[in-house]
This record gives sequence, C-alpha cells and structure tokens, in this order.
Amino acid sequence: MNIEIIGFVAGIITTAAYLPQVYKIWKTKKTDGVSLFMYLVMFIGISIWLYYSLIIDRPSLIVANTITLLIISTIIYFKIKFK
Amino acid sequence: MNIEIIGFVAGIITTAAYLPQVYKIWKTKKTDGVSLFMYLVMFIGISIWLYYSLIIDRPSLIVANTITLLIISTIIYFKIKFK
Repeated sequence: MNIEIIGFVAGIITTAAYLPQVYKIWKTKKTDGVSLFMYLVMFIGISIWLYYSLIIDRPSLIVANTITLLIISTIIYFKIKFK
Repeated sequence: MNIEIIGFVAGIITTAAYLPQVYKIWKTKKTDGVSLFMYLVMFIGISIWLYYSLIIDRPSLIVANTITLLIISTIIYFKIKFK
C-alpha cells in the first residue's frame, strides 16, 4: 500500500480529534478548560511542521498540517470571542 | 540547514504545547473542559502517524510522535483518574 494513504488515514483521525473540542466550545460557550496558551504554541509548532512537510514534499503531511492549522485558528477565535 | 533540525524544532514546540494542559489538570484536578474522546481519537491517530514516520524513516517525526503519544497517554490517565 502507498504509505501516503496511511498518512492520509492518520491525518483524517488526528484532525477529526479536534472537532469535538470545537463543538463543545461552540455549544457551551465555555472555554475555561481549554488553554489559549496551548493552542497559540500549537499554532506556531504546526506552522513549522507545515514548512517541514513542504520541504520533504509529503502530500499527506502537507494536507494534515494545513487542516490542523485551520482548526486551531478556529479554536483560538472561539477562545478569544467567548473568553 | 538540515531539514530534520527544523522538524525537531517543530516537534519540541508541538509537544511542549501539551504540557500546560497536563499541568492545569494536575493542579486543578479538574478535567471538565478536556474531552476524553478527543484524546482517545488523538491517541489512535498519532499511533498511525508514528507507523508512517517509521516507514518514511524521518527521525524528527519519529521522536515527535513518540513523545506526543506518551504525553497523550498521561492526559488520558489523568482524565480517567480525576473524572
């Protein structure tokens, strides 16, 4: 099997893992248990991972890091809006 | 610069991002804002990423995914212990 397929499966699962957190914040309008600092640091880290992925040119890593970055941006937006 | 150095920098930042969450749970003994389901799904996803990393043989990805898996396991342990 193409290793990139395994990468895409991993990417779908790790990005999907963030969705319940987004839903929970949106539904309860409470972000007390979620650390803004954690997501800001994660945003920086994932941005560097995205750069790394582009250099080694691995499609599954590029797509996964791009989507994760978008989801983390959404959580940061909620965190600031509902603080 | 060796691209693996950039990977290790990204890895240090993304794994460090989890530490405030671990500290917060440990200090407050409250895990209400943290979704157990999120971390369980993340555990599965990161396990597959680790397999992917071993196949494409990228040291920074292997180390980062291994450490992330250990941190997520710790959070899951806290989540179950302090539920």
